[in-house]
Amino acid sequence: MKLTPQQIVERMWGEDAFSQELGMEILDLGAGFCSVRLRVQASMVNGFKIAHGGITYSLSDSAMAFAANAHGKVAMSIETAISHVKKAVLGDVLTAHCKELSRGKIVGRFEVEVKNQEEQVVALFKGTVFYTEESWG
Amino acid sequence: MKLTPQQIVERMWGEDAFSQELGMEILDLGAGFCSVRLRVQASMVNGFKIAHGGITYSLSDSAMAFAANAHGKVAMSIETAISHVKKAVLGDVLTAHCKELSRGKIVGRFEVEVKNQEEQVVALFKGTVFYTEESWG
Amino acid sequence: MKLTPQQIVERMWGEDAFSQELGMEILDLGAGFCSVRLRVQASMVNGFKIAHGGITYSLSDSAMAFAANAHGKVAMSIETAISHVKKAVLGDVLTAHCKELSRGKIVGRFEVEVKNQEEQVVALFKGTVFYTEESWG
Amino acid sequence: MKLTPQQIVERMWGEDAFSQELGMEILDLGAGFCSVRLRVQASMVNGFKIAHGGITYSLSDSAMAFAANAHGKVAMSIETAISHVKKAVLGDVLTAHCKELSRGKIVGRFEVEVKNQEEQVVALFKGTVFYTEESWG
Repeated sequence: MKLTPQQIVERMWGEDAFSQELGMEILDLGAGFCSVRLRVQASMVNGFKIAHGGITYSLSDSAMAFAANAHGKVAMSIETAISHVKKAVLGDVLTAHCKELSRGKIVGRFEVEVKNQEEQVVALFKGTVFYTEESWG
Repeated sequence: MKLTPQQIVERMWGEDAFSQELGMEILDLGAGFCSVRLRVQASMVNGFKIAHGGITYSLSDSAMAFAANAHGKVAMSIETAISHVKKAVLGDVLTAHCKELSRGKIVGRFEVEVKNQEEQVVALFKGTVFYTEESWG
Repeated sequence: MKLTPQQIVERMWGEDAFSQELGMEILDLGAGFCSVRLRVQASMVNGFKIAHGGITYSLSDSAMAFAANAHGKVAMSIETAISHVKKAVLGDVLTAHCKELSRGKIVGRFEVEVKNQEEQVVALFKGTVFYTEESWG
Repeated sequence: MKLTPQQIVERMWGEDAFSQELGMEILDLGAGFCSVRLRVQASMVNGFKIAHGGITYSLSDSAMAFAANAHGKVAMSIETAISHVKKAVLGDVLTAHCKELSRGKIVGRFEVEVKNQEEQVVALFKGTVFYTEESWG
């Protein structure tokens, strides 16, 4: 029986210690899209008192993983790039909006826009996943 | 008085909550290069029981930040890309080796190779920093 | 006197031997956006009888250069990435649509979608330009 | 009978109109590596009288295609990124040195350094190829 996007991501989420650790929250989800949110906490800042680049990256990467796997086949991230457009500071609420750009049998492309609570773009992420033969469920 | 690479990175490190949180350790450091290590902990795995992509990214990004700022001018990461070459699993010890590829007045390019305890390449990172007018110290 | 986007790009175009050589044609233009078209000719294919990756790249890079410079300051491309999504073959008419993602004093980000005559996505390009102090006109 | 790297690339080259058109010349070749050279001609400059970004990209992309296919399986470029480090001007002789960073069954990673006649780095290229099931020969 084919699993729904929600069922697939529930399984992923249950074992995704790092996304949980960072306090991520899934806002929206479907085959090929996903929105995930987190709040910048004191443990997430770097030497410039702004969110470490790894925070927006991790948020984007999780959003892409959920969006890509929601199609039903196990997808692995192979290539990703992120542009840091604007600083995110302590207390900011960041939302990553992931959408699919193209989808083949083997490879899928996604882009993620990370915005803060004032709808300003904080980061732009682009990623490629590889679809394995393995199905969810 | 010009600060040494060690003095600059000590200051950065003291405020870098996220790198500390992930248990990073600086092994080697100089103007334009840096090696940083961490151990993959239970809190760092994702839904596939392998290290979240954000772990190798964060390790690489920290290594680049230290290497770039060690020159004496405040450097901000603007564009980065990472290829996930091999899975990292719970207990793996990952070391990011960052070296400078080119350096101009305004822009510097770096590459980072992340290897596991068996010297296998886990991830390949490439980044561009912007050098501000501001100096350390 | 400030030049218009059209006046700036006319000047660029007049000296842009390579874009002319490839038979590019500007369809639409303004500050921060541009569409450019070309037809895949026999001289542009590679060993697989499909358009060389350099064709969609060059088309995208020209579109970004025109869109970025149209703001009035001289802009130089510093970082670009392109995903080859679908083959382009002899006779295909490719159109690159460039739009601005973000714009700061020093750095601007752009994305370009390259589509064929059937509106299928052939390539996805993302680029960063550096805005110099120098103005056009 | 398995073809040698030289035999494979000879076949590719014979049909690679664009690489020939740009006056490329293969200097060195083997499974996973390749060096290719060209001279910046008047037809290759852009509106700033410097080599169009598409020139160093095309040179790098050809070098990667030859290096990757030389292993014996048909390889397609899927993701590439290039940093433009230094201007190349009319008359410059550019050499792209491609080496393999990692190689799996399905995906291979390569980097290319483009240098001018004074051994200065002009561009840094990184690419990912997908290995198809199809073999050469």
